Amino acid sequence: MKTNIVKPKTLSGFMELLPKEQLIFDRIRDTLSTVYRQYGFLPLDTPILEHSEILLAKAGGETEKQIYRFSKGDTDLTMRFDLTVPLAKYVAKNYSALTFPFRRYQIGKVYRGERAQKGRFREFYQSDIDIIGDGSLALMNDAEIPSIIYDIFNRLGLCDFTIRINNRKVLTGFFSMLGLNDKAEEIMRIVDKLEKIGQDAVATELQKLEISKENCDKILRFISFQGTNEETIAFLNSLKEGNEMFELGVSELSFVTTAIKTYGIPEENCQIDLTIARGLDYYTGTVYETRFNKHPEIGSICSGGRYDNLAGFYTDKELPGVGISIGLTRLFYILNEREYLRKDALAPADVLVIPMTDDVAPSILISNKLRKEEINSQIYFEKKKFKARIGYADKLSIPFVIFLGEDELAQERVSLKNMITGEQQVITLDEAIAIIKNSLSEKENRTLIDTEMTNR
Amino acid sequence: MKTNIVKPKTLSGFMELLPKEQLIFDRIRDTLSTVYRQYGFLPLDTPILEHSEILLAKAGGETEKQIYRFSKGDTDLTMRFDLTVPLAKYVAKNYSALTFPFRRYQIGKVYRGERAQKGRFREFYQSDIDIIGDGSLALMNDAEIPSIIYDIFNRLGLCDFTIRINNRKVLTGFFSMLGLNDKAEEIMRIVDKLEKIGQDAVATELQKLEISKENCDKILRFISFQGTNEETIAFLNSLKEGNEMFELGVSELSFVTTAIKTYGIPEENCQIDLTIARGLDYYTGTVYETRFNKHPEIGSICSGGRYDNLAGFYTDKELPGVGISIGLTRLFYILNEREYLRKDALAPADVLVIPMTDDVAPSILISNKLRKEEINSQIYFEKKKFKARIGYADKLSIPFVIFLGEDELAQERVSLKNMITGEQQVITLDEAIAIIKNSLSEKENRTLIDTEMTNR
Repeated sequence: MKTNIVKPKTLSGFMELLPKEQLIFDRIRDTLSTVYRQYGFLPLDTPILEHSEILLAKAGGETEKQIYRFSKGDTDLTMRFDLTVPLAKYVAKNYSALTFPFRRYQIGKVYRGERAQKGRFREFYQSDIDIIGDGSLALMNDAEIPSIIYDIFNRLGLCDFTIRINNRKVLTGFFSMLGLNDKAEEIMRIVDKLEKIGQDAVATELQKLEISKENCDKILRFISFQGTNEETIAFLNSLKEGNEMFELGVSELSFVTTAIKTYGIPEENCQIDLTIARGLDYYTGTVYETRFNKHPEIGSICSGGRYDNLAGFYTDKELPGVGISIGLTRLFYILNEREYLRKDALAPADVLVIPMTDDVAPSILISNKLRKEEINSQIYFEKKKFKARIGYADKLSIPFVIFLGEDELAQERVSLKNMITGEQQVITLDEAIAIIKNSLSEKENRTLIDTEMTNR
Repeated sequence: MKTNIVKPKTLSGFMELLPKEQLIFDRIRDTLSTVYRQYGFLPLDTPILEHSEILLAKAGGETEKQIYRFSKGDTDLTMRFDLTVPLAKYVAKNYSALTFPFRRYQIGKVYRGERAQKGRFREFYQSDIDIIGDGSLALMNDAEIPSIIYDIFNRLGLCDFTIRINNRKVLTGFFSMLGLNDKAEEIMRIVDKLEKIGQDAVATELQKLEISKENCDKILRFISFQGTNEETIAFLNSLKEGNEMFELGVSELSFVTTAIKTYGIPEENCQIDLTIARGLDYYTGTVYETRFNKHPEIGSICSGGRYDNLAGFYTDKELPGVGISIGLTRLFYILNEREYLRKDALAPADVLVIPMTDDVAPSILISNKLRKEEINSQIYFEKKKFKARIGYADKLSIPFVIFLGEDELAQERVSLKNMITGEQQVITLDEAIAIIKNSLSEKENRTLIDTEMTNR
């Protein structure tokens, strides 16, 4: 009959999950939104397509090569490659309708046509929060951002991470004190690689910039400093030579790390790291990176910082802000690939109701009742053998099955089977509801992710 | 300083909402997911870009014209124009990893380059549910679909709607009884327009197909029949002439409408309408459309039906299913445009905490406590005048403000201001939490949509 069948396939570099993975992905995404909302962030949902002249107003060569750009009719279109540029456009466009500080979150797909390789995606979710001020923005906001990240990772059961914090003014000021103003950007790019390439390689690269041995040593001593946040601040204070930029940076960094403590974040989860520079010259103050302590090879899974001006390409208004971005698809990929996800932790339903008589009406009434009690419930309508019916619940990891046979109906009871323990009992519907609810309330986010990743 | 500023603009036909609208949009979207999950549907998230040969395996001329298609490198890419084709690909591709019946929901953006006009979108959300069987699928599923739609609309506070239900076999069988087999598709396309163009115009169009006066009258009498579901089934039974297709259709329609009653759906919300045919020849049994009774001009905001084979273009497996799609962006646009949305019903936070002293630490501790109590809380850190601070809460419709001044801190109290009543009281934090929680629990989805739309 069929003339030809097209082999079903998905583009390489485009993540498409199986149901049990998707359930966990969605739960993680929901956790992010929940925490963002707890902190008063507004949701934003900008188009995936924009005018190319908008998205590329700022972009340089590297971005241009990676983008998905095409024409339809007379319109030159580009698929968004991050959520920051659309935010800048949005704030500039709707400036007068917004209330500042404008706190927004956006969790959305972005597109980059990078060379396909394992763990690199061309379509991936970014999960961004930003706080935008109108003309000015209090420094306290820089302390709130890491506390939001801390809450999220904790809720997800990911405890063994460090938010590394630094301040660009400290770095810029420091290089200025060494008389290396004009080489600051290049030095920061090199310093940023310390962990990856090591001290010796950094020294070699610095020397290529024709930096004196003395200055090289000072830079290496600076970026190699290790200590508590308090010790690091003391070390920085000891370097002060009357450079305004440096002193402002140290005072900001000191203020922000102290405030982070007030939020209740343990110091082991948020540490000053003088090597963090963030490549982008966009950042002007606080900068953040976040790593899993046991997995330095993964790199930063959550980065951001303070910037002076969000939307200079679209408006004359000065819009300083601070924000951070979680690479959600990449985070999920890592957790999944390293088998940290408990794939049986979530199911499409809490209960599968299996009618054992021809009349399915009682099953419908019971399912309706369960849903009113906020128990997700599905009825198995197919006329299959008993083994296939119970196998359905098993395959989908549905934790409870309710059987409704002649006997149960006659007695106004249900047979409730706990699919994990195998225990089965004939009880009233209300008793069943109580048992199911109790079991559901015991489940927590934490169980989504394996304890090996969870525990220190 | 600025060399040039690009005027910030969004593509026409691409919806981009202001924060208060976005809050409501997201709440509506969350309501859909919640109800889908209650019925045991699995989430699915397929890529927005696919190989053109995949998405266009089935597409005809009209679709081809509207699509966003382009090349990157050697790859011919198309942005998805619905969620059904990606579902078909997904099920065919992952057949052996899926458990059937496979119940999935997907809420995602799709792209159609239609001519831009008011209320027509080029990027818009569809919200689809489908139940896919492996070889067969019980008819009861056809009754569950409308009950899910009923639950959703009720939760949203939209009560004055009718799900219209019909069965393609009834129509095909009826035309076959009239000896009009070969013209069935054309007739259905005309019949589908009855409400739009009226009886006379339908008669004229039918006559153009060279259908006899007698048959025309029979068709008109058939599609004009009005009555309760029971009366309609009786009317259909009276037409039986031994045509198998027709009798199967009538028995299916009768079974499905009876089962819908068992789900507890009032008949006024779910009525047989013999004119509903759905344009697509894809549907083979039950078909649905959904309209607002007071707004027939809007057309169907939720349509779907039963199909024999989901993925014939990608696999030899027979995959019958039933599904329905809500045009979410269009639904939102209509509610918004007709001013049915209560834009002050939702706020980014439940409480704005305003520190009145230089030390913001107590505000941070209190906000942390509020969040633990599941109260969304934001601190106002900016050093602005009092009027600007309180105005911030007002503009964002944040319902409560907590002031923390010297006096409050000394007494271990907070000043809680109800922004709606204006009432302000100095109380303990625990008392404030109780008041806020009580107020939040009183709020319901229903208040998002104006009662004029809500009530009959």
